[in-house]
Order: sequence, then C-alpha cells, then structure tokens
Amino acid sequence: MSEGQTWTTELSWAEPNRVLVRGYHLDELMGRVSFAEAIYLLFRGELPPPGIRPLLEALLVASLDHGPGAPSALAARTAASTGAALNAAIAAGVLCVNRHHGGAIEDCMLLLERTVAQKREQGKTAGEVARETVKAALAAGRRLPGFGHRVHTHDPRTARLYRLAEEAGVGGEYVEMMRALQEALREAGKDLPINVDGAIASLLCALGLPAALGNVFFIIGRVPGLAAQAYEEATTQKPMRRLDPAACRYAGPPERPLARS
Amino acid sequence: MSEGQTWTTELSWAEPNRVLVRGYHLDELMGRVSFAEAIYLLFRGELPPPGIRPLLEALLVASLDHGPGAPSALAARTAASTGAALNAAIAAGVLCVNRHHGGAIEDCMLLLERTVAQKREQGKTAGEVARETVKAALAAGRRLPGFGHRVHTHDPRTARLYRLAEEAGVGGEYVEMMRALQEALREAGKDLPINVDGAIASLLCALGLPAALGNVFFIIGRVPGLAAQAYEEATTQKPMRRLDPAACRYAGPPERPLARS
Amino acid sequence: MSEGQTWTTELSWAEPNRVLVRGYHLDELMGRVSFAEAIYLLFRGELPPPGIRPLLEALLVASLDHGPGAPSALAARTAASTGAALNAAIAAGVLCVNRHHGGAIEDCMLLLERTVAQKREQGKTAGEVARETVKAALAAGRRLPGFGHRVHTHDPRTARLYRLAEEAGVGGEYVEMMRALQEALREAGKDLPINVDGAIASLLCALGLPAALGNVFFIIGRVPGLAAQAYEEATTQKPMRRLDPAACRYAGPPERPLARS
Amino acid sequence: MSEGQTWTTELSWAEPNRVLVRGYHLDELMGRVSFAEAIYLLFRGELPPPGIRPLLEALLVASLDHGPGAPSALAARTAASTGAALNAAIAAGVLCVNRHHGGAIEDCMLLLERTVAQKREQGKTAGEVARETVKAALAAGRRLPGFGHRVHTHDPRTARLYRLAEEAGVGGEYVEMMRALQEALREAGKDLPINVDGAIASLLCALGLPAALGNVFFIIGRVPGLAAQAYEEATTQKPMRRLDPAACRYAGPPERPLARS
Repeated sequence: MSEGQTWTTELSWAEPNRVLVRGYHLDELMGRVSFAEAIYLLFRGELPPPGIRPLLEALLVASLDHGPGAPSALAARTAASTGAALNAAIAAGVLCVNRHHGGAIEDCMLLLERTVAQKREQGKTAGEVARETVKAALAAGRRLPGFGHRVHTHDPRTARLYRLAEEAGVGGEYVEMMRALQEALREAGKDLPINVDGAIASLLCALGLPAALGNVFFIIGRVPGLAAQAYEEATTQKPMRRLDPAACRYAGPPERPLARS
Repeated sequence: MSEGQTWTTELSWAEPNRVLVRGYHLDELMGRVSFAEAIYLLFRGELPPPGIRPLLEALLVASLDHGPGAPSALAARTAASTGAALNAAIAAGVLCVNRHHGGAIEDCMLLLERTVAQKREQGKTAGEVARETVKAALAAGRRLPGFGHRVHTHDPRTARLYRLAEEAGVGGEYVEMMRALQEALREAGKDLPINVDGAIASLLCALGLPAALGNVFFIIGRVPGLAAQAYEEATTQKPMRRLDPAACRYAGPPERPLARS
Repeated sequence: MSEGQTWTTELSWAEPNRVLVRGYHLDELMGRVSFAEAIYLLFRGELPPPGIRPLLEALLVASLDHGPGAPSALAARTAASTGAALNAAIAAGVLCVNRHHGGAIEDCMLLLERTVAQKREQGKTAGEVARETVKAALAAGRRLPGFGHRVHTHDPRTARLYRLAEEAGVGGEYVEMMRALQEALREAGKDLPINVDGAIASLLCALGLPAALGNVFFIIGRVPGLAAQAYEEATTQKPMRRLDPAACRYAGPPERPLARS
Repeated sequence: MSEGQTWTTELSWAEPNRVLVRGYHLDELMGRVSFAEAIYLLFRGELPPPGIRPLLEALLVASLDHGPGAPSALAARTAASTGAALNAAIAAGVLCVNRHHGGAIEDCMLLLERTVAQKREQGKTAGEVARETVKAALAAGRRLPGFGHRVHTHDPRTARLYRLAEEAGVGGEYVEMMRALQEALREAGKDLPINVDGAIASLLCALGLPAALGNVFFIIGRVPGLAAQAYEEATTQKPMRRLDPAACRYAGPPERPLARS
C-alpha cells in the first residue's frame, strides 16, 4: 500500500464515544441481541431472522467443551500446568484446532458445497450425487468428513441439532445431501453416524457461511471450554504434573435433568 | 501424580454417546440455554437466574469488536497477512490480551474485591474507603484501573451495562464502590469516566466471578472479533502489506438504528 | 494407539542423569560442537562434516533479525506492548512466519526439488528445465519463489551465502538450477535478484533437508530477533502505544567494520 | 505517540541492500561469527570475547532437547498431531516455557542477583549470605530455584557447564554463590544437586545478562527441539493419537561416543 492511501474495513469502528458493529451502535445491541446473534451479525453483516436463534445458540453450545481429553484441552492444560497466563493457555489450545480436531467441519462444508453444486448443475438427485461421491471416495481410500467419531456411535448432539434445524426451517439441500451421503455409505457397507462436525457443517452451509469459517465457529464455541480447562488446571492441580487423560475421573455434579423446555 | 492415581475434573465429561457439562447433558442444553448462559454454567457450575440473561449477553457483546486498531486485532491481521491459518491468527490476537489491553478488567476486579472487603471489615462507608484508596493511589502516582480510556470520554457501553444491571438487580456493593471511587477521583481533581473495563469488572464481581477470570471473559467476548478481523484481512487484502490502522476507513453499512427493543 | 503399545522417537531421550541426542550424550556435545552443529545433528541425525560449519552458521545468522518492520517483529512487539510475557510475544511472532513471510524458503525448496528431479529424469540441462519452468509460470501469472524482494534489489546476504557455499563445496545442482532460473527470468524480461530466501532454499536442499523444514530453519534463526525486539519494546517503550514502523529510526551503534576475517 | 514523532531501536535495521545488526553488516557477520555469537551480539550489543565461545555454544546446546516428555515438547506434538503447521506447533511449545518449565533460570538469576548484591553491600561472605537465605527459605517453606530436578540426581549438564566456565574464566561471584547455597542447603539437611537451570542461571548472570532474559535463552536453545519433535510427530505418527509419553521408547542411534575433543 502506498502512503496516504486508505484501506477499508466493513466490520466495526471505534471513535470517541461511539463503537459501531456493522452499522449498529454496539451499546444499542447490548441487552437487545444475544451474544450468538451478535456473532452472526459480525460475520454475516445482518442480524439473523428471529426464528433461527435457538439453532444458532445450539450450534455454539454444541462445541462448548468435550472433557479434558480433547487435544486442545490437553494443550491448554499443559500450558497452564507450566505456569502460563490464561490467555497463553487458551492460545495454545486454539493452536490445536486444525484439520484433525474441529477441522472436519470445514472439510465437510467443502464436500457439501461441491456435491450440492453438482446436484444443481447436473440435474441429478441428492442420492445420485451421493452414491457417485461415496464410490469415488472408497475407490481412492478416502474417508468422508462428517461421518463417524472416535468416541461416539450415535452422537446425541447431531440429533438435537437436526431437530432444532427442522423447527427453524433451516437445512434444506445441505441436510438432505448429508443424509443422502450417510445412506450411500450404508449401502456401501459403511454404517457410520453423522457426527457433530457433519451436523454443524451442513447447518452452517444452510446459514450461508463460507467453508473457511467452519473452523472459526468451532473455535468461538470451544474457547470457553479451553479457558475453563486451563483455569481448573491452574487452580486445582500441582504444576508440571504428568497429564494423563486416561487417569482422569469426572467429579462434577452428577447427571441431572434440565428444568427448562 | 503417581501411577494409577486418578485426578478429577468438575467441568465436563465425554463418553460414548454422552457429553456432560456440569452434570447436564450437552444435547439437552442445546436449544434450551443460550451460548452466554452455557458459558456462565461452565464457569460458575450452575445456570444463571433467568433475570440476568440480558445482562450476561451484554457483558459478552460489549467486548465483541473495537475496530481494526486494537492491538489484538492488529496482531491477528498481521498474522493473517503473512498467510497464517485462521486459528493461528486468532491465537496471535489472544496473546495480545494482557494487562494493558483487556487486562484492566482483572486489575479493577482486584481493586473492587479489596476495597469492598475493607468496607465490610472496617465498618466504613464506600465513600470513606474510596477516598482513602484514591488518596493512596495519587500519592504513589498509581492510576486506578477501570477509569479513563484512550479513545472514549463517555463510553456508551458503560451506561448501557449499568442500566441493564439495574434492571437485573445486579451490582450492589461493587457498582456502589465503583461510583464512590469515581466521585473520590472527581473530588481529587480527576474527572474520569468509568470505562467499559471498569463497568464489566464491577458486574463480574457482582456475579461472583473471581478476578482471575476477568481477562478470560474479555477474551471469550473478543475472539469472534479477532476471527472476523483476520478473515477480512485474508479475504480482502494483499498479503504482507504494511498495516497502518491510521490509514483505515470504515466502509461497512452506515450507522443504522436497531429495530428491536 | 491401544493401551500398552509403545511409540518411538529417534530424536532424544532423558532418563536419570543421562540425556541423549541422536545417540550422543548431550553433555559430551556441550563445548565440543557449536549450537548450529547441534541443530544440524538434531534434524539430520548425524553431525555435519567440519568443512560446512561456516556455511551452517551463516544460514542461521542470515535470518537473525531484519529490523522492527518485519511482520513477525511487529507482532512480537505488539504483544509485548500489551504486557505479554516474553515467551508469549515470541510465540505471537512465530505465528507470523508463514507462506508470505519466511515461507518462500519452503516454496522455493519445493520448486528446486521438482526442477532438479525433472533435469535428472528427463536428461535435460538446467537451462532447458529453467526456461520451461519460467515459461509456464509466466503463462499462469505465477511468481517464482526465491526471486525479488520488497526491500532489497541486491540482497547482500545472497552473495555472501553463495561465496561460503562455494568455499564449503556445497550447492551443486540446486545452486546451478537457481542460477538457471534467474537467467531464464532475465531472458523473459524479468531481471530479479535471487533473494535471501532463494539462496537459503537452494543451500538447504543441497544439505539434504526436506522442504517441509525450510520454514523451521528460518524460525530457528529468527527467534533470537523476535525475542530481542519484544524485550526492547517491553523495556524501552510505553505500553499500548501505536506501533508505526514507518516512524522508527535506528539508534544503535553506527555502521562499523568487523575486525575478524 | 503523536504523529510525526519517531521512536528508536538499537537492535537492527533493514534498508535497500543493507541489513545492520548492532552496527555490523549482517552479511559481514555471516561466516565470520557463529550463530551463538550473533545471538550474544544481538542481546548484549557487542560480540563476545573469543575465549567464551565454547561456553556460549554449550549454554544453548544444553537446552536443545530433553525427550518427548517435556511439557513444551508434548504441546508441540499435540498441536502437530491435530494437523497444525510447524510454526503453530512451535508456538504452542513456546507457550509452555514458563515459571515451572524453563522458568527456574529466571527465578534463580533473580536469587543470585539479590544474594550477590547482599554480599557486596553488607560486606559478608558468600557462605554467610547463603546460610541466611537458606534459613529464610526453609522457614517460609519456599524451595530455592536452581536446585534439584524431577528426573536427574546429578545432572551431567551442570558439571560440563561449570568445567567450560572455568576454562573460559567465567563465573566468579555467581558460581561461588551458587555453590555456597548448595553447601548451605546440605548443612540444613537438603542434599540437592545444582540443576541445569541453576548452572545456566549463574553463568548468564556472570555474562551480564538481566534475569528477564533467562527464559528467553532457554527458549532460543529449545526451539530446535520443539521443531524437531513436532516434525517427527507429523511425519511418523497417525493424527489425533493419544500422546502418552510414558509409552514412548527411544529408537534413535544407540549410545555412541563423540569423536571430537
């Protein structure tokens, strides 16, 4: 950039006594829109239609935390265990959200963008495109992102997200394609659940987000978990211990029902 | 930790087809509590009373983004400009949230914890403690955290947070002390606004959070902003440019009213 | 990995009163090999032949520091300016060493690996392969990594590295190809210097390092610079200042000759 | 900083075809000074006296790597295992070098600065100051940094460093004080070895480095190890594996003598 030239941002602006986010005064947003809605505004440029709010909250809550064994949690705890400041421990955790941890969201979004485009352009059904995709993947020895999980066989988060999406009228072609891919995998002898990454991926596509932001949504949802893991480590454990997640036991409140509907 | 011994976590747990957060099934929380409420649950162990929800959302929305000139935004953009993955750019931004950027929340919480404890233990009024505190700070040439801002003289976020806190019946002794300190500063010739850090600090104290988590709340609120800044940089600007925030201009939607109450 | 199974490392090992690096006792290496030689040992598995030591040292010294305007230095200073610990400031800087900053080394190594392989397999001269490569790059509008620099027209580090390489008898096909590419660019009307990234790339190839480690060598060489920039920022500047590299002036020792040969 | 004003750096400077480090042309340094000497120059402002070169190299080699079980190595491997770029994995490792891992160097330097100052100012012997210091520490239940190690009872790196220091004529009051503290601990019933952190601390003090840079020197020495650990993880292991350092076995070259003196 040469001197004197200006560059622009469309996101937000701070000047004396005024902070704008996408044209709205930040103080007017406060108390009127939820944190999740404000995040949607920041990335999409407009506030979400009111009907999708429960789904939006759920998409972030789904990533909140997943126990101390997740690699990002382990890295955050390891940093905390050496005496790192909490922001540094969070950063160490965020650095572990990549292709093999959280990143399946982005890969699955790319898969859905490609297959839904094929369906549209080639005038095929979702089932046809799905069967071709699965066949090609199996022939190449590739796994499809968004299916199967190293811990869960029926991830309860997937069912819940799809129910909320149905209530919000969100999903359309992307959820259809996800289910067609699952069916095609089953026909090919691979009975795999749609994992939470796959469910999130299809719904973020349906909400119009680009694949490049898939990982970002997971990170936004998981940062509170990384922070809580690091804080618990710093305040309840001895420094520099050997952190073996296989030797960990849950000692929080016992399983309890939620008194809200 | 010797072999075979177990360590414990009270936060969350993942086992096949079941994810618990503080005793609740994560899938039951999804769609029933907001992201902000789930964050509160993770850190405090219980869901928040329903009445404080607008305040809770506002406390996070307040930190969402503050233009491209904030040091954390600059660092995230600088990393993105060199070709960093988005998670690495976010991490670079998070590493800039420290004592001098965001960290005033923690320092102000420590100040409020100390002064409110003095008030209780010494049977003094907030005004008396505040005047002693201001006198000692001025004598030592120390600034009080939570007052004054390098950009804003009347931060609109402060007024908004305090209004929402009043509506929620939250604040009590901590907001009282914050105002007593402002008054004592004014009497000493320093007419300084309560900045957004100070407002957040007093309300997080009132919500029962430890000072060590003050910075963490700011980070959770700001990560979406860091991500959006990095994504905008990566998708709209040339790599390796000289990033001069003084040459930046806001080109987003013009100022607009919010059609919600 | 299932329980009980072991995984292996070939790098180093610590057990009571014994630390091995690639089979050598670390304490025996200390004082007998230089830091640069120990780095070579760690990555290549064997100590370097004595004759290449000056070149090896120079490859790391070449990356030591490049003023406060480099994006990695800016990020490290920005973090330090907010009050980050020095290790966090260094990490923020390291996160800025990517494709567009330092990363040209890796890209250029990939280019050289590919073109030298073509030369060997197709029985062509370096010049023939270079001309084909340049033609294809220009047709596709791609720039060749390792040529041209945003600051330097004749990078003094390149000439120096190539002289040391000649003295060490290192370079061979890779330096030949680099020069053939430069010549082919010139014939095509692009008179570009081999930049320091290109010089380092060709010599790391000649030393048998994989392209994936190109960026790593730059980082190892630059970490002292990032640390020094962060430390200078933390100890000589006010916190949270606006960091404008265009307003910076060098105030170190004036230009001086080196009294060593 | 107001517009138009300049700030200064004393470290390095890049302008077209010229890169200065502390007044020297970088290309003149290349091939004439070692990487370790250039690091010394960057931090101290002058090249080291030639006699201390072996010690300087050894101080960095001492920190090179310490097996895959060090927390920083674990964090770097964890990040690499999730698919992080190598620079991000290195950053995750660097974020784990803190008070409880590597940070003892800084704490021990502070201890030595304080005790050597007491000795000078109060006209006492090292033994007297050491006994008072140990007595106060034991009374307060504090451990002295630089003594004892969780793995080594006689760290071979300590003996080697002190031998090289003797040969270089470096150490003086700081090594004397370190030994006086060890003796005072022994008299108090605590027979603890001077660990490698303590040895490095006393020698960095003797070389005139401030305590704030103790951690930095460890990081500079360890970054190659972090990089090598991350690279080995990325190239030889499956992604997202459970990283149990207790299940790791060394499979590098067997123990071998060094054919150099």
